[in-house]
Amino acid sequence: MTAASSGAGSRPALFTDLYELTMAQAYVADAMADVPATFSLFVRTLPAQRNFLLAAGIDTALAALESFRFEAADIDYVRSLGRFTPAFLDWLRAFRFQCSVVAVAEGTPMFAGEPILEVTGPLAQAQLVETLLINELHLQTMLASKAVRVVGAAQGRRVVDFGARRIHGIDAAVNGARAFAIAGVSATSNLLAGREWGLPVVGTMAHAYVQSFASEAEAFRAFARHYPDTTLLVDTYDTLEGVHRVIDLARELGPAFQVQAVRLDSGDLAALSRTARDMLDAAGLNQVRIFASGGLDEHSIAALVAAHAPIDAFGVGTRMGTSEDVPALDVVYKLTALAGRGRVKLSPGKNVLPGQKQIWRIEEGGLARRDVMGRAEEQNTGRALLQPVMQSGARIGARPSLADVAAHAQREIARLPQLLRGLSPARYPVEVSAALTAYAAEVRAAGR
Amino acid sequence: MTAASSGAGSRPALFTDLYELTMAQAYVADAMADVPATFSLFVRTLPAQRNFLLAAGIDTALAALESFRFEAADIDYVRSLGRFTPAFLDWLRAFRFQCSVVAVAEGTPMFAGEPILEVTGPLAQAQLVETLLINELHLQTMLASKAVRVVGAAQGRRVVDFGARRIHGIDAAVNGARAFAIAGVSATSNLLAGREWGLPVVGTMAHAYVQSFASEAEAFRAFARHYPDTTLLVDTYDTLEGVHRVIDLARELGPAFQVQAVRLDSGDLAALSRTARDMLDAAGLNQVRIFASGGLDEHSIAALVAAHAPIDAFGVGTRMGTSEDVPALDVVYKLTALAGRGRVKLSPGKNVLPGQKQIWRIEEGGLARRDVMGRAEEQNTGRALLQPVMQSGARIGARPSLADVAAHAQREIARLPQLLRGLSPARYPVEVSAALTAYAAEVRAAGR
Repeated sequence: MTAASSGAGSRPALFTDLYELTMAQAYVADAMADVPATFSLFVRTLPAQRNFLLAAGIDTALAALESFRFEAADIDYVRSLGRFTPAFLDWLRAFRFQCSVVAVAEGTPMFAGEPILEVTGPLAQAQLVETLLINELHLQTMLASKAVRVVGAAQGRRVVDFGARRIHGIDAAVNGARAFAIAGVSATSNLLAGREWGLPVVGTMAHAYVQSFASEAEAFRAFARHYPDTTLLVDTYDTLEGVHRVIDLARELGPAFQVQAVRLDSGDLAALSRTARDMLDAAGLNQVRIFASGGLDEHSIAALVAAHAPIDAFGVGTRMGTSEDVPALDVVYKLTALAGRGRVKLSPGKNVLPGQKQIWRIEEGGLARRDVMGRAEEQNTGRALLQPVMQSGARIGARPSLADVAAHAQREIARLPQLLRGLSPARYPVEVSAALTAYAAEVRAAGR
Repeated sequence: MTAASSGAGSRPALFTDLYELTMAQAYVADAMADVPATFSLFVRTLPAQRNFLLAAGIDTALAALESFRFEAADIDYVRSLGRFTPAFLDWLRAFRFQCSVVAVAEGTPMFAGEPILEVTGPLAQAQLVETLLINELHLQTMLASKAVRVVGAAQGRRVVDFGARRIHGIDAAVNGARAFAIAGVSATSNLLAGREWGLPVVGTMAHAYVQSFASEAEAFRAFARHYPDTTLLVDTYDTLEGVHRVIDLARELGPAFQVQAVRLDSGDLAALSRTARDMLDAAGLNQVRIFASGGLDEHSIAALVAAHAPIDAFGVGTRMGTSEDVPALDVVYKLTALAGRGRVKLSPGKNVLPGQKQIWRIEEGGLARRDVMGRAEEQNTGRALLQPVMQSGARIGARPSLADVAAHAQREIARLPQLLRGLSPARYPVEVSAALTAYAAEVRAAGR
């Protein structure tokens, strides 16, 4: 049950906005349910603090579409609302998602306005999955896009996910750990996520453990007896005194001392890590690594790296787990074609490009230079990012492993211009093809 | 399954940081597991954008503690990690939460440093539930504390939860809807949350529905035929043109016209709502209400209310659902007593008050004037906020209904000073009693 409640392929159909169902009933009643439609899912604007997004959540979203079912208890609840006809309840009961989907590969860097996926199929079907698709792709893309900055700032040092306690609920914690893994995070402290995705799990000790002993030395001795290769948390009373206690323990244990690391969790991490490193080295404990945690994000990690703080790995929790500086992206899912004709909403400031689209990434010298968005049927140079992933409700090809997705992400990120990979604001050019520009004008002129 | 996966009493035991288990195994092996301990859960500091917090998530957290079990599959996974002994796996399998808990009533306004709950019982047990308790109380308290600002800004106008699509995952959406209800939000668009908590569910129509017809007029006519008392979304093409189409429909349908409201979702909502109101009134449609949505938060709602915009209700999504300005609170769960003696962590800037505590709220003229935090056994004037809610793992008394919790919250909020209920930063005095101050000094002097 825990696996079923948390992750891939188990998003309940009843997790939807009511209006998806009222619209579907109207479509069904008016014989419009099967009109062919295309919806496009994209992020309207990029926040100033994000130079690119890392597309994530696609595999889990496709799994959810494949298993999308209204169960008997769902139907009973919908009936109880008193707004739905027996005929529509039958339609819901029989509902199986049969649309086709094109999407970018998970782990692909994306920019404002570029479709992460497009759904084409019967209007009522494509509309009905809106809440689910936005929620799933928003959560993972937002968290992966934050984590990739943290991992980048650490410049090769390990980053581990300590977010479970303040991330927004269990679903975010479990699916967030997946997004973090795609972005290059090495491990998680969260056992439920570890089991769900086969991720390495890590953990050290809490201050409460140290406080439960008459002295810090006793606490370290006891924990190292149970877990010889553990990491010892040294800041419960005084960080450098704590490092002294670790050195004392090494002298006491001699060759039996196998402690891997000390963890600093408060104070001036740059200064403390330098002194701790000197102390450990002077005691011949060069192999003992320094692990840092405590309110870290990409900026504090970049500052520590720039200051040459001798920190080997970072535990990052709340600020990555909640994407604290950007806790929401402007993801939308918009109707762009109906019955073979382009559709756009004309509300001020909310421009949408009509039809089925393609994105071409144009590279020179191994680096991405610009993207072109065009009509799906155009021919253009560059790498076409949107590829068929689902045909009539059935996935095309095997599910990629999470490791494969993460490896793809690393390759794609390496092909971005250096400036985009840094923390200073930078923008990447995304152009709209002449054909799509003309088509958009045509659709707008027709007032659709 | 959907209900089980989403809400009360079903938080999987495996949703925990690894270190909770490694510490527990060490305690069990060293015969420390049953040493009596107290842990205190509180928010260390209040963000500048929050004058108070609204405690939420207590009832669901207690339900989770009552049903806390490691299932066979959980034990198998823990065994697979290769760090745990058969004896400890047996301990986990037999684990039933048997601590005692004191907590404030859900819906009580809280301030920095004040315990929302305290857990007293066997050390290993009280430690083991840390991740679960922090996550559950953090999520709901953070979201209720945001929502109460939105509801307050609306000054009696209805606020409905439209957050499902960008809130951080299904768990946050379902438990968030509960927190919103406690804070005074009237309804939700999210069917899964509606079913879980018995909340009113609401919904209108999406732009895509309007776009699916040859004209806006046809779309309105069709939707109103299916749902005569619906709300019509008028901004797909041009808001005021949309209002004209609603008036046209009223003329066409005559007495059969029962449309309840129009929804404005973009543009200058103050100006558009005024013109729309004038147009509707001039057409004799005084009963048609105006509903506004689109990127709203407490500040934009307060501005609309201050401008006397004739808006009757607000749909609030992303900014409330993600607590966008404050997406994390500094909630901690700290050991404060062990074997009858106070314990505190001495790390810089992370002061903790030792022992079991009480909070007294001191009121004058029906308004809260100040709080005093003291030792649990002290006698003080004022209302004691922390009350026993669980004894040896069993809840005391009946579970309050969500409606009762929401009513309690409204009463308690009404007793706060007016300034605290507004959006300008204001601070409320929280004092530490002489006895607790002296005890803290004593514990610190002892270096614990």
